Amino acid sequence: MAIRYPNGKKYQPNTPSTSTAQNKSVSYGKRGMSLEQDLNDTNAYYLANKLAVIHKKPTPVQIVGVDYPKRSSAKIKEAYFKTPSTTDYNGVYNGKYIDFEAKETKNTSSFPLNNFHQHQLTHMEDVREQGGIVFVIISFHRLSEVYFTRLEHFQPFWQRMLDGGRKSITLQEIREVSDQIPYGLNPRLDYLSIIKKHYF
Amino acid sequence: MAIRYPNGKKYQPNTPSTSTAQNKSVSYGKRGMSLEQDLNDTNAYYLANKLAVIHKKPTPVQIVGVDYPKRSSAKIKEAYFKTPSTTDYNGVYNGKYIDFEAKETKNTSSFPLNNFHQHQLTHMEDVREQGGIVFVIISFHRLSEVYFTRLEHFQPFWQRMLDGGRKSITLQEIREVSDQIPYGLNPRLDYLSIIKKHYF
Repeated sequence: MAIRYPNGKKYQPNTPSTSTAQNKSVSYGKRGMSLEQDLNDTNAYYLANKLAVIHKKPTPVQIVGVDYPKRSSAKIKEAYFKTPSTTDYNGVYNGKYIDFEAKETKNTSSFPLNNFHQHQLTHMEDVREQGGIVFVIISFHRLSEVYFTRLEHFQPFWQRMLDGGRKSITLQEIREVSDQIPYGLNPRLDYLSIIKKHYF
Repeated sequence: MAIRYPNGKKYQPNTPSTSTAQNKSVSYGKRGMSLEQDLNDTNAYYLANKLAVIHKKPTPVQIVGVDYPKRSSAKIKEAYFKTPSTTDYNGVYNGKYIDFEAKETKNTSSFPLNNFHQHQLTHMEDVREQGGIVFVIISFHRLSEVYFTRLEHFQPFWQRMLDGGRKSITLQEIREVSDQIPYGLNPRLDYLSIIKKHYF
């Protein structure tokens, strides 16, 4: 059975990367891998080649009970998912702070805004005001289309929803305000090239 | 019984902050609070006053088993601590990427280097090469002394250990290469003032 956060979102487990960043080569698996996997591979490539240092944060968990059978191991036996208070990814490129959230949808014509939380939008605006580089990455899984949207271009859709408007962004709207991130061999999703274009 | 990581380190639970960042006031508890609590309060103060956006990363956990009794809740029933691959704290000040690790010792004359992992040192050097601002914060709990040490000044002690030298840094050595962070009312540990002095 699917695991869901308290808000009904599915839990996506962190699957180990199949790439070998140490060898500076990333295997080109089939398209349709999860966005998280693609981004992890991309970030491993950036790290191995000293292009950027960007990591996914761990899933926030409230730990309640731990078994401690022996000194060398501890087993968490009761814990709960916490709602993330920030975004999933952050790091540094050329001294600058990078911060983004990445979301995937199986829809083919629009992106549902309930993939985001208000406090994430608040966090992203805080970062932007502090001079950080902030954006969202939205993947339309079934279309194999991934978009890079600057926070300033994402916020009006969020505001429209707060004002009582539609609770999603149409694919067409996303295309108009975003850069498509092409799938590549290595790195798989070269969002850094778009960062360079927009912010440097 | 104390909970320990596989390497024998104690697990420090994330205790909820007692401060009310929304009110832009941070209560001045007794000295001797944990370093993590002091830093969380400090970061909440920075955030509320738009001085910096710096967060502690969640404790990395490998989730193995989850109970899903009803749609509104998920209970993690089997999980394990993972060794952190990065540092605990990062964020942005004035557009610049900030990254640091914070450690506390009950020793009164030296700081044991086994509080750090090699991959954390590797991560910090990667960040430094990418132009980020990297340092460590070391707290001597019983002395109520907290030090800010730039990565470049911390690395030689790590290298000395790798070369077969002592596995700790003496308090005197730390004092010689560090800035002491004075305890304050609000913020409790104003490490940002030292960042400004060193890097801006």
